[in-house]
Amino acid sequence: MTGSRLDPWIDSYAARAMGMTASEIRALFAVASRPEVVSLAGGMPYVDALPMEAIADTVQRLLLTRGSVALQYGNGQGDQTLREQIGEVMAPVGVSAHPDDVVVTAGSQMALDLVTRVFCDPGDVVLVEAPSYVGALGVFRAYQVEVRHVAMDDNGLVPEALEEALAVCRAEGRRVKFIYTIPSYHNPAGVTQDQSRRERILAIAQNAGILILEDDPYGLLGFDGEVPQAIRAMDSESVVYLGSFSKTIAAGLRVGWAVAPHAVREKLVLAAEAATLCPSNFAQLTVSEYLRTQPWMDQVKAFRELYRERRDALLTGMQQLFPPSTTWTVPAGGFYSWVTLPDGIDATAMLPRAVSQLVAYVPGTGFYVDGQGRDSMRLSYCHPTADRISEGVRRLAGVIESELELIHTFGNAPVHLPPGPATPGPDLA
Amino acid sequence: MTGSRLDPWIDSYAARAMGMTASEIRALFAVASRPEVVSLAGGMPYVDALPMEAIADTVQRLLLTRGSVALQYGNGQGDQTLREQIGEVMAPVGVSAHPDDVVVTAGSQMALDLVTRVFCDPGDVVLVEAPSYVGALGVFRAYQVEVRHVAMDDNGLVPEALEEALAVCRAEGRRVKFIYTIPSYHNPAGVTQDQSRRERILAIAQNAGILILEDDPYGLLGFDGEVPQAIRAMDSESVVYLGSFSKTIAAGLRVGWAVAPHAVREKLVLAAEAATLCPSNFAQLTVSEYLRTQPWMDQVKAFRELYRERRDALLTGMQQLFPPSTTWTVPAGGFYSWVTLPDGIDATAMLPRAVSQLVAYVPGTGFYVDGQGRDSMRLSYCHPTADRISEGVRRLAGVIESELELIHTFGNAPVHLPPGPATPGPDLA
Repeated sequence: MTGSRLDPWIDSYAARAMGMTASEIRALFAVASRPEVVSLAGGMPYVDALPMEAIADTVQRLLLTRGSVALQYGNGQGDQTLREQIGEVMAPVGVSAHPDDVVVTAGSQMALDLVTRVFCDPGDVVLVEAPSYVGALGVFRAYQVEVRHVAMDDNGLVPEALEEALAVCRAEGRRVKFIYTIPSYHNPAGVTQDQSRRERILAIAQNAGILILEDDPYGLLGFDGEVPQAIRAMDSESVVYLGSFSKTIAAGLRVGWAVAPHAVREKLVLAAEAATLCPSNFAQLTVSEYLRTQPWMDQVKAFRELYRERRDALLTGMQQLFPPSTTWTVPAGGFYSWVTLPDGIDATAMLPRAVSQLVAYVPGTGFYVDGQGRDSMRLSYCHPTADRISEGVRRLAGVIESELELIHTFGNAPVHLPPGPATPGPDLA
Repeated sequence: MTGSRLDPWIDSYAARAMGMTASEIRALFAVASRPEVVSLAGGMPYVDALPMEAIADTVQRLLLTRGSVALQYGNGQGDQTLREQIGEVMAPVGVSAHPDDVVVTAGSQMALDLVTRVFCDPGDVVLVEAPSYVGALGVFRAYQVEVRHVAMDDNGLVPEALEEALAVCRAEGRRVKFIYTIPSYHNPAGVTQDQSRRERILAIAQNAGILILEDDPYGLLGFDGEVPQAIRAMDSESVVYLGSFSKTIAAGLRVGWAVAPHAVREKLVLAAEAATLCPSNFAQLTVSEYLRTQPWMDQVKAFRELYRERRDALLTGMQQLFPPSTTWTVPAGGFYSWVTLPDGIDATAMLPRAVSQLVAYVPGTGFYVDGQGRDSMRLSYCHPTADRISEGVRRLAGVIESELELIHTFGNAPVHLPPGPATPGPDLA
């Protein structure tokens, strides 16, 4: 047998597995999940706000009345009734889709995986925002896709930068398979494309004949009550739209979906069947019954209020306590603000000191494939209460001040980066 | 834009997507799911036998007491308590594994996908039984793996044939990544490896330094009360073991698992996180609570009795009614018998006529990658009642007799095969 004593199979892995190494920083995030730490790192929705008794009754009734369906295999595309209901859930963002063009997945993460599986050969290029969702970067890495970042501003993906990136790829003869974007309440950047920005991005993609992969887990979670219209609302043939119940109902159900042009949808279903046979009927019918019997949109509105209050606590705290040269984005919805630290501070190097001061965040480098983001961090306000957020910001402000003092006294020291992507596990990011 | 009017993205797909085409035979299986058809095609467990009220109460209690965990993201490897309980569930098949070496997945299909993702580059070879599980063949196709079939007999995978296949690959300089086997109550072949057969197969794999991927969804479902010991029970370093709650609890939960050598387990978790972030806490905690509070092994015993009675109905019917030159395997557990038809009958060509006579099965070709199996079919006895099975066999015997008469009168006509793999969707296969 070849291989080492530590791993007899080390010579047997696929090429794609070479990048699959755990990051040292994970241990740090494990510490950060201790209750005394204020975690501004996680992306966990505040499920305690859910009407737990109503959900418990819903599931109980479901099992008593349709248990033999809920506990059985389903079809690979997902439950027909749920796919119809997903049409209603997407109405506020302007997406109308026939149930035949909806594919239900085990969370929208799985939809990301399937779209990449169907479209991307190793070495293909995808264009993503700078910074981008860490879970998407993980998928692209798993399929050996070359990720190229495109600049953002306070209005999201910059059209001129997108055009330039496409021109560069064209000049290099590189195949761009799709543009991956989160137009609304971006994770991690906390910004939102306005309508004219969306139109320009779509026009650029259409002109280039490039698919847009629109990821929209937060679309209904805007704080001013207005719901941005999805790019998919303007074009059903050039856009694959991804939605999720993780933030509007519950992440633990793992129910998301993709809306795709007909031929693409067919491939997604076949890929999904290879991946998991079928989505869970138990979870799907729970969502379906919840949508049918509960005031789900009222619950979404309650989440909006809750997250707005927490965002305000974060913004107020940063305004009052962060050093003047710190900047951040002001999210109009969703879970995150993106913070740029004063010159010379390295967010990755600072993290262990922050955790020792009982506050955690995700360093910016995790949201890039190319080492950008050392001066940045993502702060989330979705899970801790407003009071805890204020306390977390106070601690973090102290850590930043200490870093600045160190820099003023000793100058910048070189930093040893931990290997691997600097991101927490899914229960934290 | 390139592409066609039917599919504007047709030139954009990955190479692996080229094989993703739906089979025409699917429409036939859709017809076969009508209630007047006796389906001996599906692999759906008989979930109506579950204690539905107890499960409904279990889930309700779970949500009321631990709803904020059940509805939240979990960790990528799966719930710690459930991983410990899986250790107990595997005790009867002789597998002892530390919870750290267990990875929970969305059904064991996902574990199949992850193992293949971690080990197989396009063009790598895997050795599988002839015939083999259609869902595994779908995964291997999705990763562009070259599948080579190895002969079986009534005692399962034939060691001499395995040695020969390995020798051929060695001579060709081809890399064999693993041997995929279902030792107990094989799907679709209905046979079981005895202990000495398992030992020989393991020894061959160890000598060749080749991993065994042991798929064991039916291991607890033997009809004589004896539980075959898993190959993994003999060697924890050369075997990845896959288990599932789909047949012992409920398929609709989509909870399965892999037990892997430590280094492999680490890669599986990272691959799983890219695929779905984490398994569903809702489903995992439901399983965990069910195992903790319900007499789950008594339920497994009830399933054994139920399926044995149905197997007996199938075997008795075939014995009484099938033409003498028909042969079949006698399953000692699980869901399936493999039937070889009289000379000249093509099971794929016969299927439309069977469905018109209101009985369905899966033609043998779906369980091979190379066109073998035209004279064979898989009959399942897991879902219809014994009476319905008897009726289904009666109808099927009539169809086979008619085929024989046609052949005697007109000889064999050439048959037009539908394109694509001849398999039903997951709710049927």
